[in-house]
Amino acid sequence: MLGSSRIRTDLAVESKEKFEKDHVEIEGVEISEDYREELELRTTVVKIVTDYGAKVMEKPKGTYVTMEAPGLIVPDMDYHREISEQLASHLQQLLKLKKNQSVLVVGLGNQNITPDSLGPKAVHNLKISRHIVREYGVTGMGEEEVHAVSSLVPGVMAQTGMETMEIIRGVVKETAPDVLIAIDALAARSMKRLNCTIQITDTGINPGSGVLNHREGLNKETLGIPVIGIGVPTVVDAATIVHDAIAHLLENLEDSEMEEFLGELITPKLHSMFVTPKDVDETVKMLSYTISEGINMALSGTNA
Amino acid sequence: MLGSSRIRTDLAVESKEKFEKDHVEIEGVEISEDYREELELRTTVVKIVTDYGAKVMEKPKGTYVTMEAPGLIVPDMDYHREISEQLASHLQQLLKLKKNQSVLVVGLGNQNITPDSLGPKAVHNLKISRHIVREYGVTGMGEEEVHAVSSLVPGVMAQTGMETMEIIRGVVKETAPDVLIAIDALAARSMKRLNCTIQITDTGINPGSGVLNHREGLNKETLGIPVIGIGVPTVVDAATIVHDAIAHLLENLEDSEMEEFLGELITPKLHSMFVTPKDVDETVKMLSYTISEGINMALSGTNA
Amino acid sequence: MLGSSRIRTDLAVESKEKFEKDHVEIEGVEISEDYREELELRTTVVKIVTDYGAKVMEKPKGTYVTMEAPGLIVPDMDYHREISEQLASHLQQLLKLKKNQSVLVVGLGNQNITPDSLGPKAVHNLKISRHIVREYGVTGMGEEEVHAVSSLVPGVMAQTGMETMEIIRGVVKETAPDVLIAIDALAARSMKRLNCTIQITDTGINPGSGVLNHREGLNKETLGIPVIGIGVPTVVDAATIVHDAIAHLLENLEDSEMEEFLGELITPKLHSMFVTPKDVDETVKMLSYTISEGINMALSGTNA
Amino acid sequence: MLGSSRIRTDLAVESKEKFEKDHVEIEGVEISEDYREELELRTTVVKIVTDYGAKVMEKPKGTYVTMEAPGLIVPDMDYHREISEQLASHLQQLLKLKKNQSVLVVGLGNQNITPDSLGPKAVHNLKISRHIVREYGVTGMGEEEVHAVSSLVPGVMAQTGMETMEIIRGVVKETAPDVLIAIDALAARSMKRLNCTIQITDTGINPGSGVLNHREGLNKETLGIPVIGIGVPTVVDAATIVHDAIAHLLENLEDSEMEEFLGELITPKLHSMFVTPKDVDETVKMLSYTISEGINMALSGTNA
Repeated sequence: MLGSSRIRTDLAVESKEKFEKDHVEIEGVEISEDYREELELRTTVVKIVTDYGAKVMEKPKGTYVTMEAPGLIVPDMDYHREISEQLASHLQQLLKLKKNQSVLVVGLGNQNITPDSLGPKAVHNLKISRHIVREYGVTGMGEEEVHAVSSLVPGVMAQTGMETMEIIRGVVKETAPDVLIAIDALAARSMKRLNCTIQITDTGINPGSGVLNHREGLNKETLGIPVIGIGVPTVVDAATIVHDAIAHLLENLEDSEMEEFLGELITPKLHSMFVTPKDVDETVKMLSYTISEGINMALSGTNA
Repeated sequence: MLGSSRIRTDLAVESKEKFEKDHVEIEGVEISEDYREELELRTTVVKIVTDYGAKVMEKPKGTYVTMEAPGLIVPDMDYHREISEQLASHLQQLLKLKKNQSVLVVGLGNQNITPDSLGPKAVHNLKISRHIVREYGVTGMGEEEVHAVSSLVPGVMAQTGMETMEIIRGVVKETAPDVLIAIDALAARSMKRLNCTIQITDTGINPGSGVLNHREGLNKETLGIPVIGIGVPTVVDAATIVHDAIAHLLENLEDSEMEEFLGELITPKLHSMFVTPKDVDETVKMLSYTISEGINMALSGTNA
Repeated sequence: MLGSSRIRTDLAVESKEKFEKDHVEIEGVEISEDYREELELRTTVVKIVTDYGAKVMEKPKGTYVTMEAPGLIVPDMDYHREISEQLASHLQQLLKLKKNQSVLVVGLGNQNITPDSLGPKAVHNLKISRHIVREYGVTGMGEEEVHAVSSLVPGVMAQTGMETMEIIRGVVKETAPDVLIAIDALAARSMKRLNCTIQITDTGINPGSGVLNHREGLNKETLGIPVIGIGVPTVVDAATIVHDAIAHLLENLEDSEMEEFLGELITPKLHSMFVTPKDVDETVKMLSYTISEGINMALSGTNA
Repeated sequence: MLGSSRIRTDLAVESKEKFEKDHVEIEGVEISEDYREELELRTTVVKIVTDYGAKVMEKPKGTYVTMEAPGLIVPDMDYHREISEQLASHLQQLLKLKKNQSVLVVGLGNQNITPDSLGPKAVHNLKISRHIVREYGVTGMGEEEVHAVSSLVPGVMAQTGMETMEIIRGVVKETAPDVLIAIDALAARSMKRLNCTIQITDTGINPGSGVLNHREGLNKETLGIPVIGIGVPTVVDAATIVHDAIAHLLENLEDSEMEEFLGELITPKLHSMFVTPKDVDETVKMLSYTISEGINMALSGTNA
C-alpha cells in the first residue's frame, strides 16, 4: 500500500494489519492472538525478533502486547478493574522485577490538553512508595515485598523549554531507578481503536510516538535501564482521516496516480491538527484510572 | 450550493462567503467591512434585516460583527489588549446599556475539554460586582456608573443531566438580569479561522452552535431579555475537512455526482469527532483573557 | 460552657458532646449509637424532635446521622468502598425515594480552594441519568428502576455575584426535582474530626454551615422539596484553635473572667482565616470519591 | 526571646523585627529601607555579611529584599504591573546576568493545594525560550539580547516519591543552566504579611522554608550555580497563631513560666496544620501573575 507508509501509527498491531491485508507473512515477526469472550478482549502479542522484522514493521525489536477492548469506552468500574488485572499481568511479564527493586513511572504529555493528558492523569493515581521505603525500609509499607515506586510528570517542551528526554535522563541519573515505565497518549491509524486499545511494550516510547514530538526515544539504549512503554491511542492525525477517505474513494486508481492526488491534498497544516472524539474527557479519565490501577497491581505483588 | 448546507458553520462571515463565491448579492443582508492595517484586523459587520435574508443566510435576523485578527494566535499581551478594546467598543454598541443595569455573563461549554473551555475560562477572569452593588449600592465599587455583573458556568448536559437552557432560564427568572452575554466556543467551516476570529452578535447563541448541542437557542425569544453572543471558532467538525478535501479533488464533477460520493464517504462517526490545532491549550488561554478583558472594559464604562 | 456558643460547629454530634460533658440530658433529643469494630466506624444518630431540643442544640428539628471513621484518612480503596455502602444505606433511609423519582445533587463550595472543593469534586464522580431518562424513558439505562439524577455546581458568590440560593432556587423551579441532595465541606469544632467524619441529615444545609457563607438555608422551607445534606468537616475556624488552647490554659478561671480574655484575644481577623491539615489534597480527593460512590449506590437501587 | 526561636519564619524582615523590638543592633547585618508612597510599597534590604550575623539571624549570608505592599491583595491589574516592574528591577540586580545566559525557573510546591500552588502557577505564565534559542539561535526570538529560559514544576515528595532536590539536581546537571530562580510559597510569622509581601534573595531556598519540607536547601553550595529565591508568605503555621495569642495573654509572666505553658499547649498536631485566609484562591492567582510578569520583564531585558 502506497501512502500508508507516510501516515504513521504508534501501534504494532496496526503495522501488522497492513501486511495481513496484503496476505504477506513477515520473517522475523511472531504473532499470537487470544480472545476472551466474557471481556470482549482481544490480546495480540507481536514479537519482532530480527532486524529484518524491525525494518519491515518500522518498529524496534521487542515485544508488543496490544489489548483491544471496545468496552473500555463505557464507564463501568468493574469492567475497567478486570482490564486493569489483565494489564497488570502483562506488565509483570515484561517488567521481570526482582525483589525490592525501584520503578520510576513517567506520565508523558500535556496535562492541559485532554487527549494528551492520559500519562499525567494516570500518574496521579499511583501508589508512590520510594520516599517511604527510603525512610522506613522495605517493611515500611507493611508488606513483605515492596518496590520503591516514584513518579514524574515532565511536561512538554513548549512549557519547559527542555526536551522531555533531558529531564528524564537527569532524574534517572540522579535517582537511579531499576526500570522506567512511561505512559503516553498515542496517535492511532484507525478511528475504531481510539480510547479502547492499550499497548504495552518493552521497547519503550519511540520517535514519532504520541501527540507531541519526543525528539529521542525513551529506551534502554538512551537511558541505560529497561523502559516499558504503555500507550493508548486517543487521537488520529487529521491528515489520516482525509487520506483514508480519499484512498477509499480512489481505490481503483493506480498507486502512482493516487500518490499524486494525495500529495496535493494533504497539506502540512493538516499535520498540525488532531482529531479526537467529543466524549474524550470522560474516556481519558476512566482510562487513566484503569492504567494506574494496573500498574498499582503489578507493583504491589498482589496480582502475580 | 451542494454539500455546504450539510456542513454547518457558526460564523455569519462564512455564510456570506458562500454567496460571494457565486457572485450573488443577497437581498435583506447589509455588509460593511473595515481593515485596520496596524492591527491586521479585518472587521466585517453583517446585518440580516429581512426574513428572506435570514432564510438564505440560515441565521436569525440581527447584527453579526466578526473580528478577524491572525495575530490573536501569538501570545503578545499588548496586542491582545488592543483587540480587547475593539471588542469592548463593539460590545457596548450591541449592549446599549442604560445606567446601572445588571448583566449576567454565561460561559458555555465543557471546562474539561480544552477547545470547549473558552467560555468557562473567560468567565473566570471577569470582574464580578452584583453582590457588592446589592450590599453597598451603586457607589460600592468606588465608581460613578456601575453595572451589576454576575456570572454562571452551567456545565454541559452529560455532566449535569439538564439542558443548559433549563439552568440559564431558571437563574434568569430568579435573578432578573437586564441583559445576558453568552460566551461559547464555535465550530468553524474553515481551518484558517480557528482561534483568530471573534464573532459578536445580538442574536444570542443558536441551535447547532458550539462544539456541543445546545438544544434550544439562547435569545430574546426564549429568555425574554436581550442576549449578546460572543464566539470564537476553536474546532472544525471532522466531517468538514474530509468534505473539503474531496470537494477540491472532485471539483470538476457534476453536483449530483459529488453528492453521491460524499454521502458514502462522510460517515456519521466523523460527526462525533472534532479537529483542533495541537497548540490549542495556549491559544484558548490567551483568547479567554482577551474576551474577558473586552467585557470588563465594556462594563466598566472606561472604554465608552 | 461559656464561649463555646460563639464558636460554631456544623456537626450535631459536637453539639451533643457539649451537653454530655456537663452530664446534661436534653429533652426532645434522642440519641443512639452503634460501633462496628471491623470498620472502626462509630455511627451516631441524633434526632431532634421538639422545638425545645432544636433551641438547645442550635440546630433545626430532624435526623442527623454522623459516621466517624478514622480510617477515612488512609487511601485504602476497599475500605472507602465499604464506607460508601454504609453511607448509601443511611442515605436511602433519609431519602425515602419512590419509584422513578428525580434527584438533583448540588456540590457546594469553591472548587479552586482544596478544603472547600469537596462538594464540586464529589459531583464530578456521579452517574448522571436525567437526560437519558428524558430521552429514552426509564428503561433507557437498562435497569428496571431508575431515578433521574441531575447535578449542579453553583460556584460561590465571589465568583458568580449571585447567592448560591438564588441559583439553586431558579434551577429547582425550572427542572422540578423530587428531592435535593446538597454536599458541602463543613467547619468542625475539633481537629480530631477533620476529614474522617461524614454527617447526613434530612434538615438540609443551614446558615453558618460550610467554609463560606451560604446566606439562607437549603431546606424544605426555602426550596419546597426535601433536602438531604451531606457534609464532611475539612477545616476548623482559626479562631477555634486559639479559643481552645486558651480555654485549656485558663480552665480554672471563672467563666466571666475567661470571657473577658477571649473577647480581647480572638480578633475578627482570625475569623477570616481557616485551619486545615497539610495533606488535605489527597484526603479530599478520596473523600469526594467515597461520597459520590455512596450516592451512586443509593440511587442505583443496588444497595437497597 | 523565648519561644519565638521555636516558631520559624521564612522572612528575613521578620527575623530583623525580633531584634528591633528589643532595640538590639546586630553586628554583621546591614539594613536599608525605602518607602514609595504612591505605591504604598515598603522595600527593606537586609544584607547579612558576616557569619556572626548569619548565626544571629538564623539565615545564610546574602541579600534579602523584602517588598511589602498591602495593595497586592486587591485585584488591580495596573497596580500589580507596577509591582512587577519593581520586582524585575531587584531581580536583575541579584541575577547579574551576562549576555545570552540560560535561566531555569523552578516552581516549588503542590499545585493541588491553593496556598502552596504559587510557584507552579507563576511558572505557567512565563515566556519560555530555551527550545527556540536552541533551534534558531539567539536571534530566533526577534530580539537582540535573549536569555534561554526554561522551567520545571518538580511536584512534592508525597506525589513523586523523590526529594525536590534530587529532581532539580538531575535536571540542572543535564541542562546546565547558568542560574536558577526558585519560586515558593512561604510560611510567615505574622498574619498581616500574608499574600502582600514578596521576598527576593540570592541565598536560594533553604531548609524549613515553604509549606512543605524541602530537605536540603536549593543554593549555590548544593547546586553549583547561583540560586535566586522568590517567596511570598501564603500561610501561617497553625501553632504560630496559638503561640501568639497565648504569649500576648501571658506577656507579664516570666519567660521560664511561659515556656512551660507553651510546651504543653502547642501539640505536634498543630504543626501539621496550616492557617490561610479564606480568599486565598483569588489572591494566589493574582500574585503568581505579578511574579511571573516580573520575571518575564527581568529576563527580556526591557526593564534594565
